[in-house]
Amino acid sequence: MKKPFSWPVRVYYQHTDAGGVVYHANYLSFMECARTELLQSLGFDLGELARRDHVLFVVHSAQIAYHKPALLNDLLTVTAQVARVGRARLEFEQAVVRKDEKLASARLTLACVSARNYRLIAVPEPIRRKLEGAQ
Amino acid sequence: MKKPFSWPVRVYYQHTDAGGVVYHANYLSFMECARTELLQSLGFDLGELARRDHVLFVVHSAQIAYHKPALLNDLLTVTAQVARVGRARLEFEQAVVRKDEKLASARLTLACVSARNYRLIAVPEPIRRKLEGAQ
Amino acid sequence: MKKPFSWPVRVYYQHTDAGGVVYHANYLSFMECARTELLQSLGFDLGELARRDHVLFVVHSAQIAYHKPALLNDLLTVTAQVARVGRARLEFEQAVVRKDEKLASARLTLACVSARNYRLIAVPEPIRRKLEGAQ
Amino acid sequence: MKKPFSWPVRVYYQHTDAGGVVYHANYLSFMECARTELLQSLGFDLGELARRDHVLFVVHSAQIAYHKPALLNDLLTVTAQVARVGRARLEFEQAVVRKDEKLASARLTLACVSARNYRLIAVPEPIRRKLEGAQ
Repeated sequence: MKKPFSWPVRVYYQHTDAGGVVYHANYLSFMECARTELLQSLGFDLGELARRDHVLFVVHSAQIAYHKPALLNDLLTVTAQVARVGRARLEFEQAVVRKDEKLASARLTLACVSARNYRLIAVPEPIRRKLEGAQ
Repeated sequence: MKKPFSWPVRVYYQHTDAGGVVYHANYLSFMECARTELLQSLGFDLGELARRDHVLFVVHSAQIAYHKPALLNDLLTVTAQVARVGRARLEFEQAVVRKDEKLASARLTLACVSARNYRLIAVPEPIRRKLEGAQ
Repeated sequence: MKKPFSWPVRVYYQHTDAGGVVYHANYLSFMECARTELLQSLGFDLGELARRDHVLFVVHSAQIAYHKPALLNDLLTVTAQVARVGRARLEFEQAVVRKDEKLASARLTLACVSARNYRLIAVPEPIRRKLEGAQ
Repeated sequence: MKKPFSWPVRVYYQHTDAGGVVYHANYLSFMECARTELLQSLGFDLGELARRDHVLFVVHSAQIAYHKPALLNDLLTVTAQVARVGRARLEFEQAVVRKDEKLASARLTLACVSARNYRLIAVPEPIRRKLEGAQ
């Protein structure tokens, strides 16, 4: 298994809540950034996929565990590792890390759907091939 | 001028930031709630308008002043008053209020655009008529 | 087991994404609304708890499954059922429902922590008692 | 006047809405990123300022005009130019740009307040000096 793709994210006020920490749902947003940039790094533009090809990736299920809170202005690393490439589904292992500490870890399943009716469709072949190579 | 439409909003953690107050951009989201519910109260469903009629209202400009901070669990009242109904634009006066205190006030201009190409279109006649009555 | 607490939520533009559906992380925000209003209905104010008593409830883990997409202007019902009351942790079963359709379901564990150092503390006794009664 | 500070921002699903464009309030969030990174580039860490020095910068007023919509996966440039450094207030001119197109422009006033009681305090002298140099 290759080293997971990683992406830096700075914590701004917009991500935090009155508890002084990053709001729990925003870790899922951080993980979306890393998945999008992983696809971008492989040559796929989610904007074009949606608007030109009518292909969306939607989150089908997520399991997330929070280990330590991220704080305002922390510089985080968000990782994204392809765990499984199915016909119409992708599984990712992801984490949010600060230096050597893992702050959150998650496993997400995404489904590939038509932007017209949200029905399952096959993951486009070029994406499948590249993601299998990135595992 | 009629009494402005008003809508209650509770402040949850998701709206606050590490300063312990509502994040400034979220007042604009609160104001969107009140505008949407004003249209809903007049019989217009923004979801149908977008999906069936391909009509969107997009914010064209906004001026907002913050007077006092809203805090976690505050029960706020958000007002929306139609200030001007143009051919393709609507102007709203809005405020966020806690009991007798005005926490924020804003003036927003919205443009009516086609969902297909984001070009200006006339505000649908039934909406224009109802909003003129609501001024 | 009692009927779960439920809370209505309207879908606004702020909750949706360019896929035309509610952004996946926002279901967790909807669920926060229902948990907060459940506590509120039992007489507990999360704002006072945080500011006066320095008590926070933070999400420790979450499992969420997305069954069908919620759309702009949908009127949803968000449920919150206390599944377990521990010394320092609470478990909730939650769902997002549109009429008779379950759109998403989740199980969340929350930890009770000090607002000063984020260390685990016991759930305040009055909250524990009321939540045990609400199971 | 120096060239304004600029910061790149990619548009993810989390920033967009069912209109297919960036949700209007999120331009203010993009502008927060650029202001924070400007301060960071001058050696100031907003996290330390808040937690160690109990100093917050809160938005006091904002005027924003939307010229063209930003779309999913656009790579934007967000600029931040200090327009005025007052005793307790800072004014910024900001813009969101895609290649040569200005998508949004704004003027914001921020107030420097105590994190303990939200009362106005003087901008810390080292920040004032650096920002005056950055004008």
